[in-house]
Amino acid sequence: MKLSFRIQNLSSSPIRKLVPYASEAKAIGKKVYHLNIGQPDITTPPQFMELIRNYKSEIIAYSDSKGETELIKAIQKYYAEKEINYELEDIIITNGGSEALIFAAMALCDAADEIMVFEPYYANYTTFAKQLGATINSIQTRVEEGYHLPREEEIEARITPKTKAILLTNPGNPTGVVYTEEEMKMISRIVLKYDLALIADEVYREFVYDGVYHSFASMSELDNNLIVIDSVSKRFSACGARIGCIICKNKDFIKEIIKCCQARLCCPTLEQVGAAALYDVSPSYFEEVNQEYKKRRDTIATALSKLPGVVASEPKGAFYVMVSLPVDDAEKFAIWTLKNFDIDGKTVMFAPGNGFYKNPAHGVNEARLAYVLNSEELKDAIYILGEALKAYPGYTLQSKQ
Amino acid sequence: MKLSFRIQNLSSSPIRKLVPYASEAKAIGKKVYHLNIGQPDITTPPQFMELIRNYKSEIIAYSDSKGETELIKAIQKYYAEKEINYELEDIIITNGGSEALIFAAMALCDAADEIMVFEPYYANYTTFAKQLGATINSIQTRVEEGYHLPREEEIEARITPKTKAILLTNPGNPTGVVYTEEEMKMISRIVLKYDLALIADEVYREFVYDGVYHSFASMSELDNNLIVIDSVSKRFSACGARIGCIICKNKDFIKEIIKCCQARLCCPTLEQVGAAALYDVSPSYFEEVNQEYKKRRDTIATALSKLPGVVASEPKGAFYVMVSLPVDDAEKFAIWTLKNFDIDGKTVMFAPGNGFYKNPAHGVNEARLAYVLNSEELKDAIYILGEALKAYPGYTLQSKQ
Repeated sequence: MKLSFRIQNLSSSPIRKLVPYASEAKAIGKKVYHLNIGQPDITTPPQFMELIRNYKSEIIAYSDSKGETELIKAIQKYYAEKEINYELEDIIITNGGSEALIFAAMALCDAADEIMVFEPYYANYTTFAKQLGATINSIQTRVEEGYHLPREEEIEARITPKTKAILLTNPGNPTGVVYTEEEMKMISRIVLKYDLALIADEVYREFVYDGVYHSFASMSELDNNLIVIDSVSKRFSACGARIGCIICKNKDFIKEIIKCCQARLCCPTLEQVGAAALYDVSPSYFEEVNQEYKKRRDTIATALSKLPGVVASEPKGAFYVMVSLPVDDAEKFAIWTLKNFDIDGKTVMFAPGNGFYKNPAHGVNEARLAYVLNSEELKDAIYILGEALKAYPGYTLQSKQ
Repeated sequence: MKLSFRIQNLSSSPIRKLVPYASEAKAIGKKVYHLNIGQPDITTPPQFMELIRNYKSEIIAYSDSKGETELIKAIQKYYAEKEINYELEDIIITNGGSEALIFAAMALCDAADEIMVFEPYYANYTTFAKQLGATINSIQTRVEEGYHLPREEEIEARITPKTKAILLTNPGNPTGVVYTEEEMKMISRIVLKYDLALIADEVYREFVYDGVYHSFASMSELDNNLIVIDSVSKRFSACGARIGCIICKNKDFIKEIIKCCQARLCCPTLEQVGAAALYDVSPSYFEEVNQEYKKRRDTIATALSKLPGVVASEPKGAFYVMVSLPVDDAEKFAIWTLKNFDIDGKTVMFAPGNGFYKNPAHGVNEARLAYVLNSEELKDAIYILGEALKAYPGYTLQSKQ
């Protein structure tokens, strides 16, 4: 049998493709600090398991294709407390934010249509687009500018008749950028001028460390064009629940998405029961978690600033930092660090940066670090990273100095 | 914003699209017998919830993109007991059989490529193909022939350079057909002659009522071309768990599928823990469930045979029967039955048949009935169906006689 060009053209996830090397390192007894993946070490609020343990039905039956009403109501309430008002019909439960992104792309793109993103961007956006025969139209942003957006005319100049949506991650993954209100107004103007969809991936909205978060969902002029992607994964440290949602006030959009939901039948029933309970956490939960991540952000920023030749922009949100490393090739360095390096039996794993660019020739010496470990471990991990750099045969700093 | 032609061209699921009418009927106090959907009333084996209740981790973390090893081992053991031997690497866990089907289509089809199926077929195959820009190439089978396959040369004549796979549901949904060994050998010959993929959707393999089941997985000549779709949904009455798998001995295929798995991160962790326990049921479990469904099959076949003008082929497996009804339009009749008919406050819901054909002008007077209720309820449901037929304004029997 022949495999499709479609699937052969997909790239492996930069976040997960080095897992075999990490497994080998662990097999010979090394401890690996995982900075490669956004898997927090924070405890999932216990009400998740409590509600599931108390689930009484004797049949684990299909749930509603659109999602369980209790969970939808919980999400509605979460937004209402932020003065963002949705009808129950605006919210559709999905298998993680991932499925929400796939459904949005399906609803907006025919073959060869384009989704505009700002580089570096979450690597799997490319995979989802390619799976559907759509294309990523990427515009570069720069570490020196804190990964903020280019000027309005630069963005407009890149819009083509094939451009159907702008996809923004706010707060940003992998950059940690949080867009200013001015930037958001600019994006809104462009979206409305060209009648595009705005896909706002706001799964990290609770993780903002300097100032107040503004959601695109607060901008009523966008009501008909805005598609919000959300998830319990990071918010409640429940990545394995795979519960996300797609939210939109445009009724025509929702009507079409329901056809996709019905085709895959439903999301897992029990995980929806548990996820609804997650939204019952006390308001202090978000504050405490946020403070913990802010501490980690400060820890990693300080630790990185001490490493010669490492360039990073201080992240303002989410829990990633994109760094430029003084190496020939960050993927080679990542593999070398897992295979050939340790300090007292410990080593570190991170995601090679070029996977977060459309053109993998870009970002070759960059890496994404997820600061999902406690501060002591983070300090140790960045120390090991610094020592690994100096020992790595492809270290480039001496030659530059 | 503009919606894609792709999504606007999708059809609503015939199995779920009439749910709003059923909800209205229930809202005014009617009892609705659900023959529209394959949601069994059989209790899920309690070890599913037991293992989940005992799950100890404080963090609901991402699981392996390929699936949890314990679950993969359980599936490997299930097949080994049937003398079908898989390596752990051959089995990938998916979000239900649905995702397994989508991944298979992604891996085999570029835009406009074709998947060959035999009508009537599971309606969502069309949706999955359309979502990916692929096409269904359908060949009709007939109730008078028990929905068995056409002759070899008829099938070969329909293969085009765009045909990449044959997709068979065995036992059949919606037809209940179980293919003979001769038919399977014929399909194998065709698959190998044209180097096609054979996607064998065998989720109903435990539900066979007359004779022994033969799996395509037992035919070693197909090792390199066979993709098996499987699921716990029906086998263990755990539809809401959304745990399926895709199984293939072709290493190149598996390597590509893993890229799709990594992009959507993982399947739900807890449901995989529970699903692994399902495979610990005693061997008598399958026998008991099978006997119960056989009784239901006999009950519905007998009841249907008493209804004038209703034509059905006795199903040999799965738990559906496709019937031709003496009505102008089965969808109109289904809606009318929900809205305008009841006997002692009870009515019946079924899936309109044309959704199971590529061309919705076909099967207009047909319906799919799922016999997922106990025999007493089934008898009552078919009695109500018969009375509804006689009362329905679009009843065609008088005019024919």
